[in-house]
Amino acid sequence: MAEKGTISIHTENIFPIIKKFLYSDHEIFLRELVSNAVDATQKLKRLSSLGELKEDIGDTTVEVSFDKEKKTITVSDRGIGMTADEIKKYINQIAFSGATEFVEKFKDKGDAKDIIGKFGLGFYSAFMVAKKVELVSKSYQEGTEAAKWTCDGSTEFEISEADKKERGTDVILHVADDSEEFLDEWRLKSILEKYCRFLPVQVKFGTEDKQVEDGKDEEDKPKYKTVTEDRIINDTEPLWTKTPADLKDEDYLKFYRDLYPMSEDPLFWIHLNVDYPFNLTGILYFPKAKNDFEVQKNKIQLYSRQVFITDEVKDVVPEFLMLLHGVIDSPDIPLNVSRSYLQSDSSVKKINNHITKKVADKLSELFKNDRKSYEDKWDDIGVFVKYGMLSEDKFYEKAKDFALLKNTEGAFATLDEYKEKVKTTQEDKDGNLVYLYTTDAAKQDTYIQAAKAKSYDILLMDGIIDSHFVNFLEQKLEKTQLKRVDAETVDKLIDKDEKIDSVLSKEEEEKVKEIFEKAVNNKSMNISVESLSPDEMPVTITMSEFMRRMKDMAKMGGGGYAMMGNMPDQFNLTVNGNHAIIGKILRAKKEEKKELLAKQAYDLAMLSQNMLSGSDLTNFIRRSIELAGE
Amino acid sequence: MAEKGTISIHTENIFPIIKKFLYSDHEIFLRELVSNAVDATQKLKRLSSLGELKEDIGDTTVEVSFDKEKKTITVSDRGIGMTADEIKKYINQIAFSGATEFVEKFKDKGDAKDIIGKFGLGFYSAFMVAKKVELVSKSYQEGTEAAKWTCDGSTEFEISEADKKERGTDVILHVADDSEEFLDEWRLKSILEKYCRFLPVQVKFGTEDKQVEDGKDEEDKPKYKTVTEDRIINDTEPLWTKTPADLKDEDYLKFYRDLYPMSEDPLFWIHLNVDYPFNLTGILYFPKAKNDFEVQKNKIQLYSRQVFITDEVKDVVPEFLMLLHGVIDSPDIPLNVSRSYLQSDSSVKKINNHITKKVADKLSELFKNDRKSYEDKWDDIGVFVKYGMLSEDKFYEKAKDFALLKNTEGAFATLDEYKEKVKTTQEDKDGNLVYLYTTDAAKQDTYIQAAKAKSYDILLMDGIIDSHFVNFLEQKLEKTQLKRVDAETVDKLIDKDEKIDSVLSKEEEEKVKEIFEKAVNNKSMNISVESLSPDEMPVTITMSEFMRRMKDMAKMGGGGYAMMGNMPDQFNLTVNGNHAIIGKILRAKKEEKKELLAKQAYDLAMLSQNMLSGSDLTNFIRRSIELAGE
Repeated sequence: MAEKGTISIHTENIFPIIKKFLYSDHEIFLRELVSNAVDATQKLKRLSSLGELKEDIGDTTVEVSFDKEKKTITVSDRGIGMTADEIKKYINQIAFSGATEFVEKFKDKGDAKDIIGKFGLGFYSAFMVAKKVELVSKSYQEGTEAAKWTCDGSTEFEISEADKKERGTDVILHVADDSEEFLDEWRLKSILEKYCRFLPVQVKFGTEDKQVEDGKDEEDKPKYKTVTEDRIINDTEPLWTKTPADLKDEDYLKFYRDLYPMSEDPLFWIHLNVDYPFNLTGILYFPKAKNDFEVQKNKIQLYSRQVFITDEVKDVVPEFLMLLHGVIDSPDIPLNVSRSYLQSDSSVKKINNHITKKVADKLSELFKNDRKSYEDKWDDIGVFVKYGMLSEDKFYEKAKDFALLKNTEGAFATLDEYKEKVKTTQEDKDGNLVYLYTTDAAKQDTYIQAAKAKSYDILLMDGIIDSHFVNFLEQKLEKTQLKRVDAETVDKLIDKDEKIDSVLSKEEEEKVKEIFEKAVNNKSMNISVESLSPDEMPVTITMSEFMRRMKDMAKMGGGGYAMMGNMPDQFNLTVNGNHAIIGKILRAKKEEKKELLAKQAYDLAMLSQNMLSGSDLTNFIRRSIELAGE
Repeated sequence: MAEKGTISIHTENIFPIIKKFLYSDHEIFLRELVSNAVDATQKLKRLSSLGELKEDIGDTTVEVSFDKEKKTITVSDRGIGMTADEIKKYINQIAFSGATEFVEKFKDKGDAKDIIGKFGLGFYSAFMVAKKVELVSKSYQEGTEAAKWTCDGSTEFEISEADKKERGTDVILHVADDSEEFLDEWRLKSILEKYCRFLPVQVKFGTEDKQVEDGKDEEDKPKYKTVTEDRIINDTEPLWTKTPADLKDEDYLKFYRDLYPMSEDPLFWIHLNVDYPFNLTGILYFPKAKNDFEVQKNKIQLYSRQVFITDEVKDVVPEFLMLLHGVIDSPDIPLNVSRSYLQSDSSVKKINNHITKKVADKLSELFKNDRKSYEDKWDDIGVFVKYGMLSEDKFYEKAKDFALLKNTEGAFATLDEYKEKVKTTQEDKDGNLVYLYTTDAAKQDTYIQAAKAKSYDILLMDGIIDSHFVNFLEQKLEKTQLKRVDAETVDKLIDKDEKIDSVLSKEEEEKVKEIFEKAVNNKSMNISVESLSPDEMPVTITMSEFMRRMKDMAKMGGGGYAMMGNMPDQFNLTVNGNHAIIGKILRAKKEEKKELLAKQAYDLAMLSQNMLSGSDLTNFIRRSIELAGE
């Protein structure tokens, strides 16, 4: 025999959870109470615009105040107000959201999207910091009495008549002993500035003194006087709520400076404005890229109907755009939910795609309209573009036409242009193109200069993302190989099957190899003697592109490559048999002289790879001082 | 006229919050359901031990299973079970925790701390992944009927009779379309292994094939056969629940290897076991320190009565011990609460202090009992000790007796011993001790060798925390200064008011200065000519200790020092008027030769500071090749 019923919630047990655990930051209480006050005010304005309000609407500023002596914080509004019955209905029944009912009731009479409340839980967050809460309210409806509700944080409440004359609601928190930190002007001000800075109804918090002009003195210089004014903590019409067509560059720059006072001006920006299939407004700025990524993250602020929610926008904004700055406002992003839920939320996915597309379009437009100015910005935006290409296929498809390669001379080229540029000079004997790059132009200068002497072009790949980008380019480009400029001796970098005759006999080459093996005495050097141009270095140390990339991946901790990290570095040490010094070594009478010269040539090769340090460097320096002093 | 009442919670509105938002990870549902099953089993065992169970207790293994076709996940126990009335009481009233009532009822009959449930909300987490939940249960009480409860995720439920014969409860989840990822053997297994690995009642999940010996073959080699066994995913008596006196080193090492299969063995460990004033058990291991701090964090697992809670133990464990590994189990740590709440929680503070004290005692004991072995471990534990000294005064007071300083020879000394060691050699003319240190023995080798030649001792301060530790030591030690070995030329490092005569006249010194100013041509070098020992370098580049520390702090982003980051580096370039090369420069006939020699001496000084790079280095290498080839 089946029986049906309704699940009920045991109030005494769940109340502590709602009070203490629903929000991770206690300071949220102020956002919730001020949001409620703004909500009540907007409902009133709406009624007024519908002609349902008999009286004049008057000043509707929401006021936040505190009393250090009495240990209270008060939030007052001049909004719609509540009767005793309404208090019983809306406040005493947790999670009965007045907002839902209001929207339902007036939904046919116009746009009701300005209503903030969602679950009706916000009010109870007051108990995160208060031991007792009083609520005094008078409804806008004529002939109703004011009422006062009191609750000490248990599930018991008391309701009585009150003698409040003005329309609206005062919420008075009696701050708990462990929350007295909130009875502080600067703390409250900073919380208000964080969460309420762009609320759509004026919010007042105390007063402030201002200097204003007051006539002229005898010398016709302006005189000033001090005026005490209400301190309004919010801008009720922030830039992102306005129509882009009405705004000038200066407006965007000013807004940016207000948001990030200590920052350099941004490079450019995108004004987002979507109504369908989701609701999204906002402004995203491209900052000048800094190398310290972590510090730069979490600069985008997320709002829901002008209420600040968080600056952790991971999952809402595509990963590769996390370094952007600015504001996103959307009521369609679910709040207070888990990460895994956010990731699979379809609105979030759509927002993500929309932002990616907008950014690609903006970059493409900048590239086409003013190539010079785009190139000037490349050092700052390159990291976004490369990261985007690596992480999102859709973005790559657009970005491959405006992504730039930069060489050591500072010249820029698109992928197609670069291919055109080097196709005659840098093709190897098998018809493959070889792009050369450096990861550190200062440290690899000796190699760069040798390659330049052969008319090769060298790409600068010294950004933090470039080691990935090099691998990525090689996958995407056909018949193209990328090699670091010190991967081979310069004549082998691009194998054109040209051969230089050796001035040494086979026996002499063997002898040279022996001398160097003794002088070098280092197992990680594979020594060979080759016939290079006499102008090249007497000794060159290289690491093959393959080996170096494996080592790099191991360093980054890539799965199967981990074992490579423990392998010793293996270098190729090439002795240039055609260099004059090698002849001098062979001809030297004394063994010590042979070894000294070989050691000096080896140390200089080590220097050019930045591998000489410790006592080897000290010995080299001493030897060189002696040589110079001779 | 006042009126009193009780706050009620509007179920339809709060139910979705409980279902979707209370936990940040949906996979938690499985932990909650298995914990409930274990809870019900432990209640039964308790009743049995009290003689309240009439029947034989039998096999009490909890079983988790799933059916990919029917899209169900089932958790079954053979625990206490529920009658229809009990289901109505415990399940239909959310947040009415059966556990509380049970503990209350039996609290006089012994220890009831094994009961897991807290808020009674866990069961409803099933709706995070299920569109419909069935619960079939039969109570342990004789003569009661089995009952079946069904709910489709609305607040409506249905309850009816069931024909279950065995004691216990089955919870059957009909998995929702967006959660089908959980209908996967490996996913479920990994969730169980994460949260349920040490639950105190056996948990079975499917079966597994094992190879077991089965006699011998003709050649007398063992034969094997495949046996299918229940797969038990947990160890019901993990090491930390056992008595330390009963355990051997090998037991601790084995447990560590089980927890961190890919890691090297730990250095040592501490078994925590506290009953009062809070309840805490656990084992903390000191791992071999790795330089990549971030990767090493979050290795401590937090349990509450053997249920895995999290591996983010920030605030529970002192910051400086975050790199330890191991397990902490405490029912006194509030779960699912906010960070700011945790920080101010008094149990958490006490746990924090207790762990700090235990770690200090353990280190002190190791130091006293086996100094040699302690020194061998110092490279790994030094970072904890130094970080602890910096961050907690109480720890510093204990650690100052066992903290070690290590010099470039690899010799160790306590703070007191070191003072004794250098007090005769390293006292300056004002009676201050000067401790010398290097931040990179390889890069600063030239300076180290010069200081050693003067019988100075050089401390190795090359750890990631050492720049802070140097500042800290200077604050703590009286009349003691710390100087990096390249802060001054070697005879100025410790000013003993000794003077070396100059071989140059005042005019010659002026002339030398002019030559070097021209050859160096670098505004960041303050050039001076001084009379040092002829054995010192001809040119030395130094940066004053003060300037370098300011720069270091600016790099780390320390408040008021930020502006220093933008200042150009300022170095002191000291020309040693008494060096033979300077005489050679003065005597050289041609201006070019003077400049060439000065440039070579300057480049060698730059090399010894690792400051020669790019085209300057390439030019130096070419010049040196020519010099060697001459």
